[in-house]
Amino acid sequence: MRGIYLVTNRGLCRGRLLLDVVAEAVKGGVACVQLREKETPTRAFVEEALAVKNILAPHRIPLMINDRIDVALACGADGVHIGQEDMPYETARRLLGPKAIIGLSVETWEDVEAAQKLEVDYIGVSPVFATPTKTDTKEPWGLEGLRKVKAFSRHPLTAIGGISEANAREVTEAGADCLAVVSAICSAENPAGATARLKHVFDEALRRRDRRVSRDISF
Amino acid sequence: MRGIYLVTNRGLCRGRLLLDVVAEAVKGGVACVQLREKETPTRAFVEEALAVKNILAPHRIPLMINDRIDVALACGADGVHIGQEDMPYETARRLLGPKAIIGLSVETWEDVEAAQKLEVDYIGVSPVFATPTKTDTKEPWGLEGLRKVKAFSRHPLTAIGGISEANAREVTEAGADCLAVVSAICSAENPAGATARLKHVFDEALRRRDRRVSRDISF
Repeated sequence: MRGIYLVTNRGLCRGRLLLDVVAEAVKGGVACVQLREKETPTRAFVEEALAVKNILAPHRIPLMINDRIDVALACGADGVHIGQEDMPYETARRLLGPKAIIGLSVETWEDVEAAQKLEVDYIGVSPVFATPTKTDTKEPWGLEGLRKVKAFSRHPLTAIGGISEANAREVTEAGADCLAVVSAICSAENPAGATARLKHVFDEALRRRDRRVSRDISF
Repeated sequence: MRGIYLVTNRGLCRGRLLLDVVAEAVKGGVACVQLREKETPTRAFVEEALAVKNILAPHRIPLMINDRIDVALACGADGVHIGQEDMPYETARRLLGPKAIIGLSVETWEDVEAAQKLEVDYIGVSPVFATPTKTDTKEPWGLEGLRKVKAFSRHPLTAIGGISEANAREVTEAGADCLAVVSAICSAENPAGATARLKHVFDEALRRRDRRVSRDISF
């Protein structure tokens, strides 16, 4: 999985329906959508997840659920994204089965090392930059930290935290396989256009990175 | 399942460890314990649930988890208690299997009627009296409401909301098969003694109720 990874936040949708923002992101070419709801009652969360799944499934875009394995099981999501305070990876894998996509946030170098032993599908390098969206995070990794994680980790990297069109190129060059964004799409004037522009920058930067890697290998 | 049903609230434990209060309630003869955590991160909730299970399992006292089916699955709880805003009953049953104990809160007469079609293991008549512990509840049922539900419903009744030693007898006489309490045990000076006294009042009232029923039948 490579590309633009939307993490939802209904509070940042500027009064628009979350479902409409997701549909716009799909038009713009989003690669993955993660539903993140910390206040919504379980029943409403499941209903919303089913509605988002209906939008994504025809395009084979994976639906990820943040933290709540019960909601993921209830709606038949493709996977879950777990943080260090959420369900331990092994428990999540046992409950969801071998086919589920499981992503894990890494906020410290110890987290990166510990993830090396886990069969996670990606690690979420969080936060790359300081972000007002999530206030309970550790020190930002920065581009240097992201490069260091890329060089060490055997897992694909999803970069999150403060990513926008302005820094998408350098974040991708530093090693991100997915660019996770919240407000850069949710709060955009035109979420479809914002997604498409992020995707364009990402695709270009990734092409250059892949060329560089193949050149390094050919030497 | 009949008897005293402890619903936990760590904020009401007067600075004592929740685990210690649960252990005291076990000494006092509690019949069932429900863990209710609305703010605790998933990982800590699972760890707490496993610790409570270790206390209850040797006594074959069921462990119930409020709302969170993922936590129930992760710790191997005996069941879940769901409210009207939590996972729909059918989904909960599908995820937990036929052996799980599933209790459902009923706050209106419509809820009671709807529950009649569901294979729930009990309904939680909530709140019987006004209670400061839970502020998002509907109008209290009162003893009259409880009697009406008892006469109509095919399910065992767990009464909750404002139950204490002072009203335990009349609540049991009105039809409760379990008395669910939060502060009456969590905030008690002596949780073991409080549980034992509630159980004594309940057992006495239930014996009188059973005698009355068998007398009614023999006529």
